[in-house]
Amino acid sequence: MTSHRSGMTGDAPEPAPSDTPVPSTAPSSADALPTLVESLSSPESIAAEVSAQLEAFLAEKAAEFEAISLDATAIGEALIEFTRGGKRIRPVLLWWGFQLAGGDVRAGEAGGPTADRTAGSAADVTAGLAQAAGSLELLHAAALIHDDVIDNSDTRRGRPALHRQFEARHQRSGFHGDGASFGVSASIVIGDICLALSEELFERSQEALGNSRAALELRATVRRDVMVGQYLDVLAEVIPLGDDRIAERAWEVLSFKSAKYSVEQPLLLGAALAGADGAQLQEISAFGLPLGQAFQLRDDVLGIAGDPEATGKPAGDDIREGKRTVLIAETAARISADRLEILAARLGDPDLSDAEVAECVDMITDSGGLAAVESFIADKHAHAATMVDTWAEADADAGSAAGSTASAQVRIGSAAQERLKGFAKALSYRSS
Amino acid sequence: MTSHRSGMTGDAPEPAPSDTPVPSTAPSSADALPTLVESLSSPESIAAEVSAQLEAFLAEKAAEFEAISLDATAIGEALIEFTRGGKRIRPVLLWWGFQLAGGDVRAGEAGGPTADRTAGSAADVTAGLAQAAGSLELLHAAALIHDDVIDNSDTRRGRPALHRQFEARHQRSGFHGDGASFGVSASIVIGDICLALSEELFERSQEALGNSRAALELRATVRRDVMVGQYLDVLAEVIPLGDDRIAERAWEVLSFKSAKYSVEQPLLLGAALAGADGAQLQEISAFGLPLGQAFQLRDDVLGIAGDPEATGKPAGDDIREGKRTVLIAETAARISADRLEILAARLGDPDLSDAEVAECVDMITDSGGLAAVESFIADKHAHAATMVDTWAEADADAGSAAGSTASAQVRIGSAAQERLKGFAKALSYRSS
Repeated sequence: MTSHRSGMTGDAPEPAPSDTPVPSTAPSSADALPTLVESLSSPESIAAEVSAQLEAFLAEKAAEFEAISLDATAIGEALIEFTRGGKRIRPVLLWWGFQLAGGDVRAGEAGGPTADRTAGSAADVTAGLAQAAGSLELLHAAALIHDDVIDNSDTRRGRPALHRQFEARHQRSGFHGDGASFGVSASIVIGDICLALSEELFERSQEALGNSRAALELRATVRRDVMVGQYLDVLAEVIPLGDDRIAERAWEVLSFKSAKYSVEQPLLLGAALAGADGAQLQEISAFGLPLGQAFQLRDDVLGIAGDPEATGKPAGDDIREGKRTVLIAETAARISADRLEILAARLGDPDLSDAEVAECVDMITDSGGLAAVESFIADKHAHAATMVDTWAEADADAGSAAGSTASAQVRIGSAAQERLKGFAKALSYRSS
Repeated sequence: MTSHRSGMTGDAPEPAPSDTPVPSTAPSSADALPTLVESLSSPESIAAEVSAQLEAFLAEKAAEFEAISLDATAIGEALIEFTRGGKRIRPVLLWWGFQLAGGDVRAGEAGGPTADRTAGSAADVTAGLAQAAGSLELLHAAALIHDDVIDNSDTRRGRPALHRQFEARHQRSGFHGDGASFGVSASIVIGDICLALSEELFERSQEALGNSRAALELRATVRRDVMVGQYLDVLAEVIPLGDDRIAERAWEVLSFKSAKYSVEQPLLLGAALAGADGAQLQEISAFGLPLGQAFQLRDDVLGIAGDPEATGKPAGDDIREGKRTVLIAETAARISADRLEILAARLGDPDLSDAEVAECVDMITDSGGLAAVESFIADKHAHAATMVDTWAEADADAGSAAGSTASAQVRIGSAAQERLKGFAKALSYRSS
């Protein structure tokens, strides 16, 4: 593969990353300091690059679908609309992972998907990175589309869930048969199409970024983990609440369905695309995994105790959905057998009254379960923040003493430090 | 990419296939005769190679799932079991496509997935081809798993459909909640996992076969077409039967969901993996597309008028499922308005009595719809057979007169001719 790292100091040759399937350790030569990352692109500019690539790609694909059949027009329209929403958290993390590993790219320089570019140019690499990030958005969209079918959710991103949209289309069009079934069937297929498009856009990104085996393997791991995590989530919801493995299960779902997939792996994938070595990947993991855990633990808290005005979801929504979160596991470990019985009977019952939901929320709070999870969040957030400090110190050490022994393989300046810390805090302590 | 073609005659250099995204035409130099394909590997030996690669890959992935969580063991078990069935039609066609384009490979020489091999060796290429073919089987398995959820089918390949298997697991394990929902949810996720594994195995195949852009593009086209075809199928079933576009729609579904995906594209993908040029791909299409259409038209006939003893499905099964086949379209175009009304009301009603189904079958037969489709099959089969004759004549011409002007870009000997014709006839005129 081509390496897109810039500003490497020292004379030691880089190992060939394409032959290095994410090594667990890699020696670093003492005189080859990692690239100093002064700043990270702003989330807004990254989101703009990614949206531009995504829209151009989806418009191209929508035209292909329409060429197959006029009846297929709705597929492209639905996907373009669906992927317009979303906070682009994963794209931002992929971008920053690339930059933290010394990748040379700036959001705002690609000139959009139609820019004239030569292979290997900066615009080309930026476009490729935006495509790889867009591919993660498509993977996520596919997961959400199927997730909403599985959870029988009515809304997504402030609009009707896709299966509800196609149910409404069925009614509008005077189709016959059952509209709800049509909505589900169409969404299963459109989710599959979205997953396939995610593959295609990732393949396209590799034309500019080179075919790194490490990145391809990480990409396969991302897919695998989120899907296996989703299976574990489906399973956890039907296993009786008194089961021994409830806490272990909740952590598995949290880690694989969310923490790795939403935070750690986008960072790692970006880093791998920049040709990161094993030591860098390990450090980035040590930042990304706890941050991802804090991110999802906060989600669990908001699902129970969030302000409906801020979250846009009814209070205690996760109770009616029956999610088996770490928060529920911590509560189950703390409450009396008779209260556990009540909680178990109510979890996952969509017809609970608001009063019944409120009682469950009280149990979770009174038991100390909520406080335990807040404490986990603080701990995980602190771990992530510490890693950022280590990276910043590596920079300071290197500045004060050339040939220093600072062992961090990522070095960041104060602007990058501030951005990472702000982002970590926002993910861990957001209110929506 | 590396070219795996052997026995090229003449001195003209081959065009670099990796820069050739399936060109629609490619000049052939008159003195560079295409490779003579004396024989094609037997379906049984191809199936054995593919099954060995598939089982080794799935065993490896099952271990990964189990390492994530003991709860995830069922995923791997289900996929290993599910992919053991199947006629391996697509793998055989992919293999033959590779051979028809001059690719040098023999089933039975790979020595299985654990054979010691060096990159680019014959065993390596054979294993890579078996992986690419196995990837098609996984894509197909994913499509079937989701298809069975969409069609609410109870059985597949003589066993309970996957969602029914997981429904049974729910009951066996004393899980709580709704077993049928659990079965559907688990199958949506496992279908997604199967699709992801299909990608991964294809990526792996490219390590031995080289990264051909033409093959990657074809791979994306295969995925897209079968999924869009599936969407069109879902849509066709809810559109009133009197609609103007009924025949057009039925041909779209037949072509994209089945004819291309099951026959034409596996051949093309195999040919592209061998580095076929545009002229060869066009000839292979001219054989594969009509054969694929005959294959699916026969499926439609068997779904209405097949012998339940042979097909393993109840008589007139497609009536209760409500499939909008070309056969139904041809019938609708021929029957009276009042009969059409009866047929329209019954199509897709799972509770029809055997007598009601039999009346529908009579309408289809008496209208001349069935005869019309038999005539289409004969016509499509003849087109495919003619192409085989052209290839055989190209061989004979080349034999009798060196420097002949025979324009066919595929040349086959009599053993290959016999195998292709026998296969084409079997696909078009099978009884199960």
